[in-house]
Amino acid sequence: METVKKICTGDVRCASRLIRDIEDKIPSAKSQIKKLYPHTGKSFIIGITGSPGAGKSTLTDALITELRKRNKTIGVLAVDPTSPFSGGAILGDRIRMLRHAEDPAVFVRSLATRGALGGLSHAVGEAIHVMEAMGKNIIIVETVGIGQQEIDIINHAHSVIVVLVPGMGDEVQTMKAGIMEIADVFVINKADRAGAKQLQTEVMSMLNSAPALTDEWRPPIVMAGNVYDKKAFAASMEELVQKLENHYLYLKGSGRMAERINRKIIVEIKDALRANILEPIMHHLEESGELTNLVKKIKSRKSDPYSAAEEIARRKVK
Amino acid sequence: METVKKICTGDVRCASRLIRDIEDKIPSAKSQIKKLYPHTGKSFIIGITGSPGAGKSTLTDALITELRKRNKTIGVLAVDPTSPFSGGAILGDRIRMLRHAEDPAVFVRSLATRGALGGLSHAVGEAIHVMEAMGKNIIIVETVGIGQQEIDIINHAHSVIVVLVPGMGDEVQTMKAGIMEIADVFVINKADRAGAKQLQTEVMSMLNSAPALTDEWRPPIVMAGNVYDKKAFAASMEELVQKLENHYLYLKGSGRMAERINRKIIVEIKDALRANILEPIMHHLEESGELTNLVKKIKSRKSDPYSAAEEIARRKVK
Repeated sequence: METVKKICTGDVRCASRLIRDIEDKIPSAKSQIKKLYPHTGKSFIIGITGSPGAGKSTLTDALITELRKRNKTIGVLAVDPTSPFSGGAILGDRIRMLRHAEDPAVFVRSLATRGALGGLSHAVGEAIHVMEAMGKNIIIVETVGIGQQEIDIINHAHSVIVVLVPGMGDEVQTMKAGIMEIADVFVINKADRAGAKQLQTEVMSMLNSAPALTDEWRPPIVMAGNVYDKKAFAASMEELVQKLENHYLYLKGSGRMAERINRKIIVEIKDALRANILEPIMHHLEESGELTNLVKKIKSRKSDPYSAAEEIARRKVK
Repeated sequence: METVKKICTGDVRCASRLIRDIEDKIPSAKSQIKKLYPHTGKSFIIGITGSPGAGKSTLTDALITELRKRNKTIGVLAVDPTSPFSGGAILGDRIRMLRHAEDPAVFVRSLATRGALGGLSHAVGEAIHVMEAMGKNIIIVETVGIGQQEIDIINHAHSVIVVLVPGMGDEVQTMKAGIMEIADVFVINKADRAGAKQLQTEVMSMLNSAPALTDEWRPPIVMAGNVYDKKAFAASMEELVQKLENHYLYLKGSGRMAERINRKIIVEIKDALRANILEPIMHHLEESGELTNLVKKIKSRKSDPYSAAEEIARRKVK
């Protein structure tokens, strides 16, 4: 049986191999993804983002448990930061999620890619499609930090959870403003800690002052209690799933889902253009030795990077 | 007098306007930067990166004070996160640096740009050139967080300071591994806090186990004390400047400076190619309505983003 068919029946080994090939930029992965594409688009995709240390992995883990109670099949994509030098993933498949490893309805993979030409977002889009083709009802994409690149990644999601935690310093508080607009649901982790109430108030007042958020959907704030108080924590996870369901219904009912799907497709086109246009040009410049010559000329100020790029564009673009 | 000449005499108003034009992607900025380019390449560029809340702005401020004692002229570029929705800078010109505003030898600007096509790194490279042309001896580039994009930005620097702080949780500790390789000098802020010694030991053991770092340059770790203990803090800033000087001398003496300059130029070429090739193609797709049609076809699964991008590449690239 061919790979695509196997993946569509949920074959874990084939799906894992294809995701690894995407990560490693194996050319054959591309044609596989194209063949898978007609079988995608049926999953609900949830993004989870927040500062490092905010407890995103713990939350993802608890969310899986809660969704499994409702008989949902789940794919989890943990997006890792990659050193441009070593090229390796740092966190690997998150250890805390291993307890779901025995459950065939849960498929967890981490993803990291080399290169600065936006390859990570491209790979995320493709890996999501693999999980969609597997037939997973819900796909959770978890980023490691918060930044422009994480925002690009989170654009692949239909619904975005922003995880906050009290006591991360005022610079973090300021940064929150930047992610305010991408949040559909807030979770305040470690809500038993000092400062949690104040953080909740701050988020509320930010929501009140954001004009774009006053219409239709107001992002709810879920207070996630102490993980060791199992009962209270489970109750907050139940609340979170309820809020996600509400958001899903809102997206469907308001026509916003169609907008988000369009935005997702545009991101995928941009990523694919980068891979199909910019990367081959750079590769050719490197292989032909032209890049070395250009660097020499620019270094001695006989040229500059901007004129050089314009000249290349004139030569390469119709 | 034309803009370029004025900037080369250190004219703050002209330089500020050009940086604003770069940020706003005003087409005339491009030709100005090209004209400035022959006057660039003489400054030493220091990058400062670290997690949000690690105290980077305070450190930059103290570093300015210390460098001013040595009569250096300074440019500071604070790179802000931008919301892809509002398009606005969040932090603005860092408030804590305002006390240097009266000093004509210090030029502080913040920078943020819209768009996900790697525009920020491109703008950072150009803004650095403006400050170089102004004749600043030292240019400090400060990022807000740590991530792939920050690493792209930091590639514009000759020497990189990574700022750490005790007590940021274990996920942050793990992340450090990813930035280990870009650090030339470590600063542990709030070194009077519990856990600072342990953090120092951790960084040391990471340095010991990193094979690439055992040769030639071993990144020193500067323990920056309590900012309110002015004498102790000033002493640690003196030490930091000494380490930066050592690194500069090492780069010059070992030939590594030439390597870094080459790397910097390659980053600039890549950024400029993106601006000259990918952005116009995307723009044309949007303007002509072709993008809307493509999205429709992909949405109904009659096509996919990858085949669409390949087709565009065939049409647009020679």
